[in-house]
Amino acid sequence: MSEGTTVYEQPSRPTDERVADLLDRMTVAEKAGQLVGTWSGHLGIHNDLDDVKRAVADAGVGVAAPFGWGGATFRDAEEAVSAANELQRVALEETRLGIPLLLIVDAVHGNAYVAGATVFPNGLGAAATWDPSLIETGAGVTATEIRRVGAHQNYSPTCDVARDPRWGRTFETFGESPRLCAAMVRAKVRGYQGDGLGDDDGVVATAKHFPAYSEPERGEDASPVDVSRYKLRNTFLPPFEAALEAGVESVMPSYNSVDGEPSHGSERVLTDLLRGELGFDGHTVSDWNGVRHLNNDHGTAADRRDGVRQSRLAGLDVESVGHVEAAEHLRTLVESGEVPESVVDESVRRLLRVKFELGLFEDPYVDEDRAHATLAADDHRAAARDTARESMTLLTNDGLLPLSGEEDVFLGGPNADDLVHQLGGWSVTDPEGVPGATIREALADRLDGDLAYEQATTLNEELDVDAAVEAAADADVAVLALGEGWYLHEFGPQVDAGTETGAWPTRSELRLSAAQRELVDRVLATDTPVVGVLVTGRPLIVDRLAEDADALLMAYFPGSEGGAAVAETLLGDNDPSGRLPISVPRSTGDLPQHHDYLAHPTPIGADEHPDSYDPLFPFGHGLSYTTFEYESVTADATAAPDGAVDVTVRLSNVGDRAGTETVQVYARQLVSSRVRPERTLVGFDRVSVAPGETVEHTLSVPAEALGFVHPDGEHVVERGEYRLFVDDEATTVTVE
Amino acid sequence: MSEGTTVYEQPSRPTDERVADLLDRMTVAEKAGQLVGTWSGHLGIHNDLDDVKRAVADAGVGVAAPFGWGGATFRDAEEAVSAANELQRVALEETRLGIPLLLIVDAVHGNAYVAGATVFPNGLGAAATWDPSLIETGAGVTATEIRRVGAHQNYSPTCDVARDPRWGRTFETFGESPRLCAAMVRAKVRGYQGDGLGDDDGVVATAKHFPAYSEPERGEDASPVDVSRYKLRNTFLPPFEAALEAGVESVMPSYNSVDGEPSHGSERVLTDLLRGELGFDGHTVSDWNGVRHLNNDHGTAADRRDGVRQSRLAGLDVESVGHVEAAEHLRTLVESGEVPESVVDESVRRLLRVKFELGLFEDPYVDEDRAHATLAADDHRAAARDTARESMTLLTNDGLLPLSGEEDVFLGGPNADDLVHQLGGWSVTDPEGVPGATIREALADRLDGDLAYEQATTLNEELDVDAAVEAAADADVAVLALGEGWYLHEFGPQVDAGTETGAWPTRSELRLSAAQRELVDRVLATDTPVVGVLVTGRPLIVDRLAEDADALLMAYFPGSEGGAAVAETLLGDNDPSGRLPISVPRSTGDLPQHHDYLAHPTPIGADEHPDSYDPLFPFGHGLSYTTFEYESVTADATAAPDGAVDVTVRLSNVGDRAGTETVQVYARQLVSSRVRPERTLVGFDRVSVAPGETVEHTLSVPAEALGFVHPDGEHVVERGEYRLFVDDEATTVTVE
Repeated sequence: MSEGTTVYEQPSRPTDERVADLLDRMTVAEKAGQLVGTWSGHLGIHNDLDDVKRAVADAGVGVAAPFGWGGATFRDAEEAVSAANELQRVALEETRLGIPLLLIVDAVHGNAYVAGATVFPNGLGAAATWDPSLIETGAGVTATEIRRVGAHQNYSPTCDVARDPRWGRTFETFGESPRLCAAMVRAKVRGYQGDGLGDDDGVVATAKHFPAYSEPERGEDASPVDVSRYKLRNTFLPPFEAALEAGVESVMPSYNSVDGEPSHGSERVLTDLLRGELGFDGHTVSDWNGVRHLNNDHGTAADRRDGVRQSRLAGLDVESVGHVEAAEHLRTLVESGEVPESVVDESVRRLLRVKFELGLFEDPYVDEDRAHATLAADDHRAAARDTARESMTLLTNDGLLPLSGEEDVFLGGPNADDLVHQLGGWSVTDPEGVPGATIREALADRLDGDLAYEQATTLNEELDVDAAVEAAADADVAVLALGEGWYLHEFGPQVDAGTETGAWPTRSELRLSAAQRELVDRVLATDTPVVGVLVTGRPLIVDRLAEDADALLMAYFPGSEGGAAVAETLLGDNDPSGRLPISVPRSTGDLPQHHDYLAHPTPIGADEHPDSYDPLFPFGHGLSYTTFEYESVTADATAAPDGAVDVTVRLSNVGDRAGTETVQVYARQLVSSRVRPERTLVGFDRVSVAPGETVEHTLSVPAEALGFVHPDGEHVVERGEYRLFVDDEATTVTVE
Repeated sequence: MSEGTTVYEQPSRPTDERVADLLDRMTVAEKAGQLVGTWSGHLGIHNDLDDVKRAVADAGVGVAAPFGWGGATFRDAEEAVSAANELQRVALEETRLGIPLLLIVDAVHGNAYVAGATVFPNGLGAAATWDPSLIETGAGVTATEIRRVGAHQNYSPTCDVARDPRWGRTFETFGESPRLCAAMVRAKVRGYQGDGLGDDDGVVATAKHFPAYSEPERGEDASPVDVSRYKLRNTFLPPFEAALEAGVESVMPSYNSVDGEPSHGSERVLTDLLRGELGFDGHTVSDWNGVRHLNNDHGTAADRRDGVRQSRLAGLDVESVGHVEAAEHLRTLVESGEVPESVVDESVRRLLRVKFELGLFEDPYVDEDRAHATLAADDHRAAARDTARESMTLLTNDGLLPLSGEEDVFLGGPNADDLVHQLGGWSVTDPEGVPGATIREALADRLDGDLAYEQATTLNEELDVDAAVEAAADADVAVLALGEGWYLHEFGPQVDAGTETGAWPTRSELRLSAAQRELVDRVLATDTPVVGVLVTGRPLIVDRLAEDADALLMAYFPGSEGGAAVAETLLGDNDPSGRLPISVPRSTGDLPQHHDYLAHPTPIGADEHPDSYDPLFPFGHGLSYTTFEYESVTADATAAPDGAVDVTVRLSNVGDRAGTETVQVYARQLVSSRVRPERTLVGFDRVSVAPGETVEHTLSVPAEALGFVHPDGEHVVERGEYRLFVDDEATTVTVE
């Protein structure tokens, strides 16, 4: 677009001036339109592209989701590019002021609702790498693949700290540690937003779901998260604080209520806490239908209009799928004085600033050829492959792994040859056009011995288990690729997940399905050594495999390159360096199981009181093909409350191959003004060591990591002694 | 004691004057001594009676527990009376000021640590009666049986609202409904305290465990209770508020931390909330070792002395088992100025007032003959029998029950002939001297047919299951008395519970033990009809019995008269009128299951989202031997926020025998400023109806029951519509 004659059309002017000028020209109806989004595809009702165009042209809707999310009908890059350009043309040419659209996507592990994009491991797998720089690289790739098809805001990263594996969204999280989550969130925000939105490789990152979503009652999605202020601030807010420190542009409230208030309608949450206490100055955007829930579900709004009013007064800037209806309600609310125009003006200012900074007023169009050249480019897939490789977490190994490649292998199970299961949720639901290979394909490529394959079961149902058992009995090694499939939220939607209500996976059953357990039992009953591979969104209760299989590999939902990563790991071309970002429980009756549980009394005596934390596999667990030994751990004797403590380990690789250890530093404050965790992760680093070598490695742990937040919000690092633990070694630092 | 010459010795003087006069005469050491308790028996270390005497004579210890609790060695009434009198003699004659002792007991379901006392059903069974007047009568009986052996304060009632059946103290609670708990707590306080402490049938009631204890993480006893302020005020505080309204004299803090603070060291809890907001003016007393936990376990105090300091500044009046050590710390803390003497004076005033009001300065002695004549007196046992009868909750019945009495019955299972299991925790652990009969004894007494008995299993281990199956096959009816045994806290202590760490019952396993499940499976495989009887402290997952047994009776821990109540119910001499005060879940993966769950969204659609509340048996469930039908439910059209709403049901007994229905009124607020429960119990009444009769019964539900408490503590009854539910009927009231 050429330099216009009005202030807002002049790129040379400061953004603030352009925003102010444009805002001055806008009617209440135009302002209201800017602050709602609409969609093309299925979301309760179906909108096609013409519906979106009308909403833009007639109601001035400012935000749209034409592709890149679950209900979208456009799934190919060319469809996306075409839709994006067509909508921008309407916005620029068929509205009075020519304000471009902000297009949003749900690209939580790659722009994976666009077929042909690079698909990274889902959150839990990404976290298993304990490698923020790799995650930042991946987020950068995703941002580029978003911008090339014409979208600008990504509803990612999730900042939710996983506290209940029953919850169907566990796979999206970076696990149970606030510190590990914060590190990953920081990396994601940096990767998405790049050098700023002006850079056309950067997108608006959206920290979600504020302030706490991931510990719903019963593990039931969107049920209340009932937490104390102390837990809210020490467990759930740290990743959001990391996102804000990294300059995240947008924050999304959680569906659920906290302390009796739905986040979407809570001024305490969206204004007092987010903007007042935490200092956020970007824009907030509703989760899909989050405002409708106020009247439809939470019962805290009398009707749709009242919900719009409530969310606006609470501090919501953009109602993501409010459509024309919400804009119309907002207009009348302003006209009646129920919502002050100043509130709307402030929201419009925030949104317009983003659109200006993204350069959309200058050029909102994208190019199909450029998109094709970018999506799943070699270096993009390499980034996904590296992430999948580093995520591989070896839970047990009696020496069977790595395979030599000469073995005759039997491969079975519902996740051995299913690319969509391997992607997991927030991805296209059919494999057409998706890059990458299944475990079966990748193993067949790399194995010198024979590969026999028999699926044996679907997720839930037995197929020809007899044939599988027979083939397993004939093989040198049996590999069972088990676990979960594609799902969202409460393990649906059924149309996409291919399940029925109550069919596994469910929130109440963390064991494998009965069909898969039968397969495991029968293959274990042969004389053939068994390797279990878990393609799953969350830790499953796999006591039988843990005890009786010869090796067990946690693969998470590893993405488009995950089949290759699994095959490379089984064959020893990749040393498994993933470490569990979440505890694997022994039973649902033990939940919640997390390493950083709070100290407490045992009234009838600790000697006969079962442990608080007794998982099948603890947080941080993961084997390598080599063996590491910690010779010593030392630390600075003292640290200042605003300083850091250097922790030094001497680490030996006593095995016969190279490997990478993740050094994990845990801390316990000995005497404190509030109850503290028995241990909590305060620092970590990946350290590669050559065989036979001993290295000395120093981590700098900020004293802030030793501190905590009082229920009233005050961050403190108290003076006194802290015990620091690395593996079985311990040392002490005094904050003074 | 005759009228003394000093003010405090003159009963005619007002209590305040006596307290002030005595306080004036006391040294700091004497004050400190008054504010700690000691014990005779095993509690970490062993104290014998001479140790207690020395603590009284030398350190002026003011409170003691020589009997009536788990570690006490004196278990017979005559030992108790003798110990009480001996200690009072020392207090009066061997201390400078002659201040009598306050003696405390753990008499939570009768004075059941004194052999020969009446043992009522434990809390959950008591609640199943839904009959507060009966509970008040029982508490009066207990108070009398406490006073007769020389004690004055009862560490009861529990005000904890059960929210996690994994918790080993579930059996002590009145279940999951704040309103039902509040009604039972009110009844207990009234029953215990009678017409006032001057009445020598009244004891000091102790509301525990403030402010929230019963939703520990993982169901693990004394682990943190992490709740929002909203849940704290709406779920956990109501029973405490009821206790305070009923004039409870004492409150005990919870072992656990809430919002990062151990209750025993929290000024926010013990002063700001309890005294400031709720207006409590009695005395607080620590739970056993609750102060020691501050330094030993919570890590919030540097050492024992710091824990004493912290608890005093928080607002604790009496450290129940602080012993001489705590008194000594307290003295030096006052002398050093770390604890103001005014703080100690206030605590001493509170305690002395109680001692004066109890009449102990006039006569603290008790009489053995009078005790013997009182304990388990006929009317006392009749009260326990009535409570046990009304608690019997028939979960399923395909018509097998009631038995005619002519049948040949097989009886088996670990709880068929074990009086101690029948009592449950907080009772003596051997049956010697305990009144009452086991199920086997009671059934043998009443049955005209033959009774074959084979225990078949212990709680955890198979005995001669084959013999049991054979006998069952030969009988007309097989009755299996299953469930749990005697335990406290985390299902111990092992020396009393006869278990080992990890042996069932545990917090993580809510199914019956493997041995009992085997017995059930095998007896169900015979052709003989099966009745399950559950003697258990908490709801167990009994899906097999629910589905396949012909009848299933929940007996809770029914106390000394429980065997008779079970037998009478099986034989139809008692119509089962108990109703579940707690939901019975389908699986541990479904927890928590409670009827008053909060409304929330279901983002992928309610049509394919599993229910939030889907228990095996819902709260309020219970069958009668007759059949009730609700003809209609009507209510006042409107109510004032400070008024009440009359709810009228027309209820028919369409069966052929008399029965008692518990009319249960549930409510939902349609639009509210905070998220409200889908339904919550707001009123109930037991209504007896003759066969063939229809009655009209009106309940007055206070509008306050429809209201809620904001997170900041404000109680509100909002204007608007409320839906009221009784059984399958519904009506609406508008608060205006």
